[in-house]
Amino acid sequence: MAALLHSYVAGQWSTPQDDGVPLADAATGEEVARYSTRALDFAAVVDYARRVGGPALRELTFHERAAALKALGKRLMGAKDQFYPLSFATGATARDSALDVDGGIGVLLSYASKAVRELPNDTVYLDGGTESIGRAGTFVAQHIYTTRPGVAVQINAFNFPVWGMLEKLAPAFLAGLPTIVKPAHQTAYLTELVVRHIVESGLLPEGSLQLVCASPDGLLEQLGEQDVIAFTGSAATAARLRSHPRVVGAGVGFNAEADSLNCAILGPDAGPGTPEFDLYVKQLVAEMTSKAGQKCTAIRRALVPRPLLDTVADATAAQLAAVVVGKPDLDGVRMGPLASTAQRDEVLRALKSLTDAARLISGDPQHVAVEGADPDRGAFLPPLLLRADDNTADAVHEVEAFGPVSTLMPYGDIDEAVALAIRGRGSLVGSVITHDPEVARRVVLGVAAYHGRLLVLDRDDAKESTGHGSPLPTLVHGGPGRAGGGEELGGIRGVLHYMQRSAVQGSPDMLTAVAGRWITGAARHSGGVHPFRKYLEELRIGDTIVGGPRAVTAEDIAQFAALTGDTFYAHTDPVAAAQNPLFGGIVAHGYLVVSLAAGLFVEPSPGPVLANFGVDNLRFLTPVKPGDSLTVTLTAKQLTPRASADYGEVRWDTVVTNQDGAAVATYDVLTLVAKRPAGQPREV
Amino acid sequence: MAALLHSYVAGQWSTPQDDGVPLADAATGEEVARYSTRALDFAAVVDYARRVGGPALRELTFHERAAALKALGKRLMGAKDQFYPLSFATGATARDSALDVDGGIGVLLSYASKAVRELPNDTVYLDGGTESIGRAGTFVAQHIYTTRPGVAVQINAFNFPVWGMLEKLAPAFLAGLPTIVKPAHQTAYLTELVVRHIVESGLLPEGSLQLVCASPDGLLEQLGEQDVIAFTGSAATAARLRSHPRVVGAGVGFNAEADSLNCAILGPDAGPGTPEFDLYVKQLVAEMTSKAGQKCTAIRRALVPRPLLDTVADATAAQLAAVVVGKPDLDGVRMGPLASTAQRDEVLRALKSLTDAARLISGDPQHVAVEGADPDRGAFLPPLLLRADDNTADAVHEVEAFGPVSTLMPYGDIDEAVALAIRGRGSLVGSVITHDPEVARRVVLGVAAYHGRLLVLDRDDAKESTGHGSPLPTLVHGGPGRAGGGEELGGIRGVLHYMQRSAVQGSPDMLTAVAGRWITGAARHSGGVHPFRKYLEELRIGDTIVGGPRAVTAEDIAQFAALTGDTFYAHTDPVAAAQNPLFGGIVAHGYLVVSLAAGLFVEPSPGPVLANFGVDNLRFLTPVKPGDSLTVTLTAKQLTPRASADYGEVRWDTVVTNQDGAAVATYDVLTLVAKRPAGQPREV
Repeated sequence: MAALLHSYVAGQWSTPQDDGVPLADAATGEEVARYSTRALDFAAVVDYARRVGGPALRELTFHERAAALKALGKRLMGAKDQFYPLSFATGATARDSALDVDGGIGVLLSYASKAVRELPNDTVYLDGGTESIGRAGTFVAQHIYTTRPGVAVQINAFNFPVWGMLEKLAPAFLAGLPTIVKPAHQTAYLTELVVRHIVESGLLPEGSLQLVCASPDGLLEQLGEQDVIAFTGSAATAARLRSHPRVVGAGVGFNAEADSLNCAILGPDAGPGTPEFDLYVKQLVAEMTSKAGQKCTAIRRALVPRPLLDTVADATAAQLAAVVVGKPDLDGVRMGPLASTAQRDEVLRALKSLTDAARLISGDPQHVAVEGADPDRGAFLPPLLLRADDNTADAVHEVEAFGPVSTLMPYGDIDEAVALAIRGRGSLVGSVITHDPEVARRVVLGVAAYHGRLLVLDRDDAKESTGHGSPLPTLVHGGPGRAGGGEELGGIRGVLHYMQRSAVQGSPDMLTAVAGRWITGAARHSGGVHPFRKYLEELRIGDTIVGGPRAVTAEDIAQFAALTGDTFYAHTDPVAAAQNPLFGGIVAHGYLVVSLAAGLFVEPSPGPVLANFGVDNLRFLTPVKPGDSLTVTLTAKQLTPRASADYGEVRWDTVVTNQDGAAVATYDVLTLVAKRPAGQPREV
Repeated sequence: MAALLHSYVAGQWSTPQDDGVPLADAATGEEVARYSTRALDFAAVVDYARRVGGPALRELTFHERAAALKALGKRLMGAKDQFYPLSFATGATARDSALDVDGGIGVLLSYASKAVRELPNDTVYLDGGTESIGRAGTFVAQHIYTTRPGVAVQINAFNFPVWGMLEKLAPAFLAGLPTIVKPAHQTAYLTELVVRHIVESGLLPEGSLQLVCASPDGLLEQLGEQDVIAFTGSAATAARLRSHPRVVGAGVGFNAEADSLNCAILGPDAGPGTPEFDLYVKQLVAEMTSKAGQKCTAIRRALVPRPLLDTVADATAAQLAAVVVGKPDLDGVRMGPLASTAQRDEVLRALKSLTDAARLISGDPQHVAVEGADPDRGAFLPPLLLRADDNTADAVHEVEAFGPVSTLMPYGDIDEAVALAIRGRGSLVGSVITHDPEVARRVVLGVAAYHGRLLVLDRDDAKESTGHGSPLPTLVHGGPGRAGGGEELGGIRGVLHYMQRSAVQGSPDMLTAVAGRWITGAARHSGGVHPFRKYLEELRIGDTIVGGPRAVTAEDIAQFAALTGDTFYAHTDPVAAAQNPLFGGIVAHGYLVVSLAAGLFVEPSPGPVLANFGVDNLRFLTPVKPGDSLTVTLTAKQLTPRASADYGEVRWDTVVTNQDGAAVATYDVLTLVAKRPAGQPREV
């Protein structure tokens, strides 16, 4: 009897007290592991996450959480060869395993990198700009995102035992929520192995990840309004979970990825002989055979212009016939078995519904040539291509055969293609293969409301395209309607789904205290050392330098025009400038204004400020005329120390005013500021 | 018998065929109107919205929809005096009516203004920047929001018959969804009157607004995956709707605002004699009496430092005793009746649960002095203040008495105040009244995950503060957990809830075609007329001008430093500059680079380009050293014609490169460009 899978809960590996049920190798039918059918003490599991994992995570800034994910990603990448043998047991070929294993680890690395670039080195995320409410500026508002003091429960599907866990873990972890993983039992042995590596690495705070290899009965009952369930699986299970009393009545968050009858549309321009025709057939074959078609994102409905249907059918069938099915770890095998014989039988049942509406034109479900394994013991199927000349039947738009099964069907014009696509009633992904921008525009805008992701594939992007079926960490993954109505990944968007957005109203001083970022109208601290002479650690939000006044002369403007070559008439031609409806006479260049402002705030000699690396949101509000006098006020707005460098970024609120106090220009100046070198005395 | 309220469905006013049930004036008990108890043919209603209203709305750009809302807002504001008499009948005083009527109209105007400023004059909204996928830049992605081809069904509460409709209408309308309004029957006569004005105005496209004054039985059964229900009401009803088969199984969107035990926390610093103490008491009294406490956002739990409990109780009770209760249209009446006697009885039932845990310290539910009306006929109650010395009882944190009822309770330290606040298990709003930024920070960050909105009130913002109880169109309104888990308003955030986000992948050319905005890597069109010589209508996305090369000399840098006063050592001191870790020698000012670039792309003589009004996302990527040579490429990226002006905004993608082709600076230049004057010949 193979080993029972253990759960990792409350800081330790827990051995089930039952014999469990056997989990079979998909290709050989041999027992790989056993899975307990008993539930755990979920009150204790959830309590541990709340009491130990949550507080530990909430102590870390976004950047610190990102650093942990990055270290973990590197560690797992180094160990990936140890994961492949168990991945083969799930039926995955080496290429399939790369999607699951390498792809999952890639999500960690992508999120780590994105978080450092796009999130502050803090625990609060500011959403949008400050909203002015009162005219005098004493009452303003700022939307913020804060971490929910809850837990994230993942309920995963069998098809991606590694990616499924890691793609949900990364955003939840960055958001500051501890995760409880419930893998699908069929392939949980691979998930368990990866969790063993994670636990042994010690790279994640204790309590931030628990693994449940057990019956989930009673788990959801422990959840409340700060918790989130992220589910991947069937629409039927999604509906059951969505109706759970804790979801309906106690405000537990629920995010689902469910069934999806994804389509791929061949453009009318993409006839035989075009690169797009070949790309279409190749993509269809790839999506049917990759993971033996057990991908939520696989193409189920292949929509082609009616005149091209025969040609596409023939070309696809020819390529499918060459697909070698067999033991997934063998070289030369393109498609492995399904994850289990139960899964294969379910596909056959779905196929039966489909063949009421479509005819099988490639593949025989009863006979499959298998390389290196016994077809009677493994869960093998050949690729099965159907053709529905009548594109109106419900079954082809509603029955998802979760295996190497797709249905070809014809369409007339673009409007019909769009109408057919949306009969999927909400999908994770769709693709259109065309080299005609107008076709792309009409199809994408026609079907976008029904899709979480859309791919336009053509000769120009094919080489770099990641393909129809691959969710990417930077892009949202999910779809409306039948696809579950959820959304995960999408870079920082995916993190924010685990956080709570709140509008905070108050005085600028109070909002500055709450947001950790200087808000217009808050107190400024000037006098003393020039803030450009302060090291990063010495700077405080609100530190201010006021420079000026500096008179702007006609001579300045003329010199600037001559030096830069910017001789726009409003700066050089008094008669023409007088006709400009906005200026009514000669005005200084906007770039002269900001250049003069820099001259007023810069501290010339070497110091902690290393460079001005950018400017954001520059707006010229009042024209500057010869004789006007400029004053600049520069205020430290946000400090972003970099854990991995001896400097950080400082964002400075900048306001240039004229002699009447009117704002002439507002912008943010971005600088790199050094940390204090070891042993360097404070100047402050 | 008073008139039966009509429904406005399928383009006409529909008379119910039953006698309906009477709706009584809240103060006098007299019949105001009758409300049908029969259902309508909702298949026809929803079909009309889908067939007529949706397509008409989707033909309009965001700006055109905004213009319609603005015109409607102005029209209703002009008619508002006609709404007040029926508002009085609901029990609302003139001040209460201003919240409902003027507040509701204000939402239309605020959204109209926000949409023109923050949305493109288009039908697709771009979410975030372009995501690079392939290294060569041939495969990129852009998230877009598109309009769901569905309907928005509002199910409103009785307390804000005007605001409740308009605050849900504005974002749905901007998003392009037709709305079906189901008002609460108690006060539907006022909603019906406002809809009569809307319909008569002819300002909204036919089919974009329908009104159901009838039983809603069977309405939800008509909805599908592209539709959205926006509900305001009790948590019990919210749970029932959330479990509806169409919501659970068919992917209908559901957004709820439900019960909320909002708290207001007095800071430990805010003792008697401080402005904050007075503000606290005043706010508590205002929130108890405004709309007779029938606001989802009213303060139910008043948390004060234990040593201040007696003083706050006395001061509040004294002010409450002076509140004049009576007929709402009378001058001098501060608080009107509740909306109905049924509602009053429900409050009394809730009060009974509360008094098991708290004692009544102000107000007698059985005896109320009423000005100008018969207390036995109207739904009058006095303000009822409770005090719970034991702050641990469940009832005070869970029972919402939806009337002029609040419970005072003590807390020890800030941690306890936070712990008590979150016992509300999710609220729409909370407030903290303090002049101590550290108290504000700890409270706000401690409770934010449980709140949709938080107010920090103190002496500095009190004058301009809009108060604890007022949702604002620019700020999110909603709350997690018990408060329903929904979110509406919040400016453009509220619009996007009605749209679908999709990630679109493809070549830059294809994404440009889809997004209506030039994406880096897409084709540029150069040659011919300088794009600065083209009127707005003549410009095309992708129009490009390349300027340069222009050598940068040491002399240029020295002159620029002298002219602008920006003598930062990296531009002026070769020895010091050589020590800079990023530059290693003299570099040109970033502002010199962008100024020279302008000199290279500007067309000097008068033309359609009126002004450069700003710059976005300027990043300096490669230092420019003396002897380097600059080329600038300026490409029309986005065109935003203004309906209300003879010009529009053009955003230009700008890339400055050096002699090696390396990007030196990237940014967007923002210009105002004139439309072609009538009769002006095309130059192109």
